[in-house]
Amino acid sequence: MKKLRIAQISPLIESVPPKKYGGTERVVYYLTEGLVERGHEVTLFASGDSVTSARLIAPVTQSLRLGRKIHSTIIMHMLMLSKVYEEMAGEFDIIHSHLEYLTLPYATRFQTPTVLTMHGRLDVPDYVEMLRRYRSMAWVSISDSQRLPAPEINWAGTVYHGYPESLFTFNPDPKEYFLYLGRFSEEKRPDEAIRLARACKIHLKLAAKIDPADKAYFKTKVEPLLDSPYIEYIGEVDDSRKGELLRNARALLNPIDWPEPFGLVMIEALACGTPVIVRRCGSSPEVITHGLTGFVCDSQLDFIHAIHNIDTISRAACRREFERRFTLGHMVEKYEALYRNVIAAAPARPPTSLSQRSFQLRRHRSNRRQSFRKLLHGYHLP
Amino acid sequence: MKKLRIAQISPLIESVPPKKYGGTERVVYYLTEGLVERGHEVTLFASGDSVTSARLIAPVTQSLRLGRKIHSTIIMHMLMLSKVYEEMAGEFDIIHSHLEYLTLPYATRFQTPTVLTMHGRLDVPDYVEMLRRYRSMAWVSISDSQRLPAPEINWAGTVYHGYPESLFTFNPDPKEYFLYLGRFSEEKRPDEAIRLARACKIHLKLAAKIDPADKAYFKTKVEPLLDSPYIEYIGEVDDSRKGELLRNARALLNPIDWPEPFGLVMIEALACGTPVIVRRCGSSPEVITHGLTGFVCDSQLDFIHAIHNIDTISRAACRREFERRFTLGHMVEKYEALYRNVIAAAPARPPTSLSQRSFQLRRHRSNRRQSFRKLLHGYHLP
Repeated sequence: MKKLRIAQISPLIESVPPKKYGGTERVVYYLTEGLVERGHEVTLFASGDSVTSARLIAPVTQSLRLGRKIHSTIIMHMLMLSKVYEEMAGEFDIIHSHLEYLTLPYATRFQTPTVLTMHGRLDVPDYVEMLRRYRSMAWVSISDSQRLPAPEINWAGTVYHGYPESLFTFNPDPKEYFLYLGRFSEEKRPDEAIRLARACKIHLKLAAKIDPADKAYFKTKVEPLLDSPYIEYIGEVDDSRKGELLRNARALLNPIDWPEPFGLVMIEALACGTPVIVRRCGSSPEVITHGLTGFVCDSQLDFIHAIHNIDTISRAACRREFERRFTLGHMVEKYEALYRNVIAAAPARPPTSLSQRSFQLRRHRSNRRQSFRKLLHGYHLP
Repeated sequence: MKKLRIAQISPLIESVPPKKYGGTERVVYYLTEGLVERGHEVTLFASGDSVTSARLIAPVTQSLRLGRKIHSTIIMHMLMLSKVYEEMAGEFDIIHSHLEYLTLPYATRFQTPTVLTMHGRLDVPDYVEMLRRYRSMAWVSISDSQRLPAPEINWAGTVYHGYPESLFTFNPDPKEYFLYLGRFSEEKRPDEAIRLARACKIHLKLAAKIDPADKAYFKTKVEPLLDSPYIEYIGEVDDSRKGELLRNARALLNPIDWPEPFGLVMIEALACGTPVIVRRCGSSPEVITHGLTGFVCDSQLDFIHAIHNIDTISRAACRREFERRFTLGHMVEKYEALYRNVIAAAPARPPTSLSQRSFQLRRHRSNRRQSFRKLLHGYHLP
């Protein structure tokens, strides 16, 4: 197969990979490494403190969160996009942008096709209007559920995030605790995790960070519940401690209550062989197979049932499902196939106006709508 | 003369005109009214709570500062730009954007020429890089001094802000006080105004707002100086009280210490016949003619000399200079001429690449450079 000349455009907020948090930059890092390993000629546009096997083009020396405060985030990203498109578009077979909407006015001007991965939730009116206005772009969702606010646009595919197989270690023999991992934010519902642990009399470790924005919630809703022999509050942890905590847990207790487009923490747990107990919302019923890799819960009774029956889940099966669905290899292969599809579909043409393009693409949409209908109907049957 | 079909694109942060602060939206308001009055067919893109004689197209019902918090400012502005350019560009002879940089990726795609007025200070590296990258656009500065960080780009003109002649009332007989008007922000140096008033034993009224960001500065640097029989602290005032305070002042004491691209408050004072005592920085030596409409000061001694000699300035001359240089009529005429120049210079052509365009425009730049050199040399000789 012909090797591709690929541009990866990362946000500049964090380095690639990020020093600490930064889901998007982490995914861009692994994807870029995977594409290079498969022999593609990859150019990564990211901050100068990034580490990559690809050619790095850095419009700023340091990630914007750490670097000079003088920079305007939007303008720095616009300058980067201007460089990618206005100076270099002809050097690439495909441009893959992780900058979402800001990419649109550039991407629509150039013949080199662009793939746009949406990393955030889309159930916001402005966002939906933007998706619809540029419906003919090659949009990529990170879960099928993420598409629900705008199912009718030109989704080129869903590509789940993936991790290298060796990044997390499988452990068949966990210790006697459940784990809550992430931030102490209201939408992740650590209070519910604590309440469930106390009700079921199970040992729960809370390894989570308190962001400044979450302080009030933590003070009023979480802290008052911590005083219990069942609850162990650990605080923020680094990557190696995170791996250790994950692989020794009986299960990840993840009562999130928001339409999370993809929960990286769930595949991190599965990679360790640790099952996941999660509320049915966002991507959770896609990532977790009810009864096989954990439990997808609709009510507190479901959660309690899941906790009591966690031993019916095979840890080997959890790891197997990770290897079958969520490795870096899968992610890279899916993106590669998607790039080739998008390149093949891009007509060799002088740049046409948007209205013409959306007309051209409208004809192909009936197929997609059909597959989406399948998705909608299968959605509550994990 | 042929009437023009003009698009005015305002920020959506405040309504047009703004309910309180919002210099850009205020200027857009008067400019739009003036253009309509001259018979042009103007379409104003602004928030739905705007008031205008033009056709209003509003992507949001309420200005973003007041409206639903759900909106992303950038995305709402991008949606508006997409509508202006991708749906309607053909309906206009000229598009005048006050959204600065965000306009660029749209404006470069369409044949309808765009005029970009820069409303903020430009001495920021990112901004300068952006100006240079798109040097061939029709950039408009609001003072000549604003251009200093990037003198070499294609400045289509400087257009000073202007106010309707009747908005402020001329008063030949002021009362016995000087006025500081604006915000209590460090760069506007109210502390210096107070120190000067105490040293010269003159009565100073301070009509200014304390923004949350300025609280610490106010507490530590201003408040300790307020306790003096010469200082009267008034607080925030509305438009009618502002007019009254301005026209009854012996002078506006304006010791700003930042490169202000244009100080609206200075022309408000002149419109009342009130002279202005100002530090030499930013646009001040352009707006204030030393010895005629006030004093442009380099040192504390200059300020003290100005205060003691304020009666040598003719209030009638101040008003006359306002009428000669800073009325709405002037602003509208200058923009109208500038639109016609830009339209005439725009080649009837299929959209060309940016590099071709900058080549085309480079040939015309020598004239401009010459006039800019004049500006640089004349800069300290008001």
